[in-house]
Amino acid sequence: MTEMRRDSITGDLIIYSSVRNNRPRDKEKKEKNNKNINKSSKNEEFVSNCPFCRGNEHLNDDSMDEICCSDGWLAKSISNKYPILDLNFDTIFGKHEVVVETHRHNGEYYNMSIEEFNNVFKLYKDRFKSLSSVNGISYINIFKNSKSNSGASLVHPHSQIISMSVVPPEVQKELDVASDFYKKNNVNLYDHIINSEINYKKRVIFDGECFLVYVPFATRYSGEVRIISKNNINIDELSEAQLDELSYIYYNFFRNWESFQGEIPFNVIIHTDVIGKKNSDIFRTHIHIVPRKYNFGGFELSTNFFVCGTDPEELASILKF
Amino acid sequence: MTEMRRDSITGDLIIYSSVRNNRPRDKEKKEKNNKNINKSSKNEEFVSNCPFCRGNEHLNDDSMDEICCSDGWLAKSISNKYPILDLNFDTIFGKHEVVVETHRHNGEYYNMSIEEFNNVFKLYKDRFKSLSSVNGISYINIFKNSKSNSGASLVHPHSQIISMSVVPPEVQKELDVASDFYKKNNVNLYDHIINSEINYKKRVIFDGECFLVYVPFATRYSGEVRIISKNNINIDELSEAQLDELSYIYYNFFRNWESFQGEIPFNVIIHTDVIGKKNSDIFRTHIHIVPRKYNFGGFELSTNFFVCGTDPEELASILKF
Repeated sequence: MTEMRRDSITGDLIIYSSVRNNRPRDKEKKEKNNKNINKSSKNEEFVSNCPFCRGNEHLNDDSMDEICCSDGWLAKSISNKYPILDLNFDTIFGKHEVVVETHRHNGEYYNMSIEEFNNVFKLYKDRFKSLSSVNGISYINIFKNSKSNSGASLVHPHSQIISMSVVPPEVQKELDVASDFYKKNNVNLYDHIINSEINYKKRVIFDGECFLVYVPFATRYSGEVRIISKNNINIDELSEAQLDELSYIYYNFFRNWESFQGEIPFNVIIHTDVIGKKNSDIFRTHIHIVPRKYNFGGFELSTNFFVCGTDPEELASILKF
Repeated sequence: MTEMRRDSITGDLIIYSSVRNNRPRDKEKKEKNNKNINKSSKNEEFVSNCPFCRGNEHLNDDSMDEICCSDGWLAKSISNKYPILDLNFDTIFGKHEVVVETHRHNGEYYNMSIEEFNNVFKLYKDRFKSLSSVNGISYINIFKNSKSNSGASLVHPHSQIISMSVVPPEVQKELDVASDFYKKNNVNLYDHIINSEINYKKRVIFDGECFLVYVPFATRYSGEVRIISKNNINIDELSEAQLDELSYIYYNFFRNWESFQGEIPFNVIIHTDVIGKKNSDIFRTHIHIVPRKYNFGGFELSTNFFVCGTDPEELASILKF
């Protein structure tokens, strides 16, 4: 089956084609993937030249924030030494921090504990609050690259927070789509998605108190999963219960994901409202979990059409918890 | 230096930042790149299980078109066995062909002869003419993925041609940018770029009779190079002289590129006008040569901002011929 689908949140056009999954691939690539998996599982908890390992604090500036136990820090936020943005820049400015998600060099979302995830979300909350209070900042961008195929340059588990003086084009696109939907239907697009998916059931992975985890009908990247907040909150407003639920979701989701397809590279993207929650009627904080198993190629580059082959209902039934 | 720049052809916003080039990377990645290079240079001219090698014609349907010598075919176009589009599809349809660029399994743009490039362009011309004559086809999309990091699934040198019933979003975006420019300035954007770059000189790689090769001021992908046709022609209208000039350009460009940075993965994208050349006042056929040395990460995914660190003047001076 091949058909055109539209991503309801981003407005992206997708060519849905199950045929393409059967393409042959030269061996080289498969071997490479396996090698990566073996390598990372062999890693140690401490690596002497890793700037993010506990004990190597001298390789960084002081932490902006830390979560500690008697052994030292468990997770922390530090300035990025190679920032995309700086508060002193002219046309676009901001602050670029790295959240070191665990002191364990060999940690990753596939093996982190609920407590470790909780530390990550607590740091997001604190840093969001602090960074968004700076004059002129319009948006706080939180994302994670896991493994080199996803854009990660260092292995030690980390995510990134960048405050920005402008609203990024991708977020503006989502806001425009949501605004159009609201004008036409007088309903919040995200509430509409939450209600429809819960009614339809088959694409739901987890239906929590505060968050819905589901596989969208159409996404650019085959196998993308989304988490939508049921309430109108930004990251800096997360309650203890919400922090706990998110940690529970990450813990279960990434274990199920790994059982299904191994330790593939991925990105996590958190899309929040612009600072001051100017769009609370039409928007909800949501998270994109994007598998990066294959690279996009010239077709996607030349057309901005993305070819997707994952059956959303099937994927959801496999990942359900 | 960090500043916001806009790609004059696509309208994309770019964060230009020279600082990020100095980021450390874990060793794993560098080793992998080197290994790829060694592997590909060891390849043989014929591989028994490669569906694109001369002698393995039984692994494919008949050719749509061939360029031959006394030893057999030198280059050919065949149907893609795993098509993105098919003429029988409903909401979006088209035909997906593979241009096997040379019979040599170990050929690639870094080592192909002028004659081999000429065969490729002749096939593009013939297939463009044939595919665009089909009822309901609006666009002919030509692109190449080289090496697995660029989306290529098979090593044997090939490019792809897909006829499409719709104008792809990326091409429509370029047409919209060009149309806006024309409305404001009463000048063809591409002619304006050609004249400005020739006057400025410093970003020009090659100024030919029919084509300009240059490094744009801003592009999404660090180090992208473009070739713009100086005349209002589509691929099916290329004269002998124009075919020769393009072959000469590819031959020299890819050798210089390889001397500069090794055999990196890349995409080539040919953007032509929609069928019937409805936009000849505002548009020109052009080629994007996109290096795929590093993957984009969560920052690009979450913001649709691309971070670029290549100094265009410096790159042009290195690649000049």
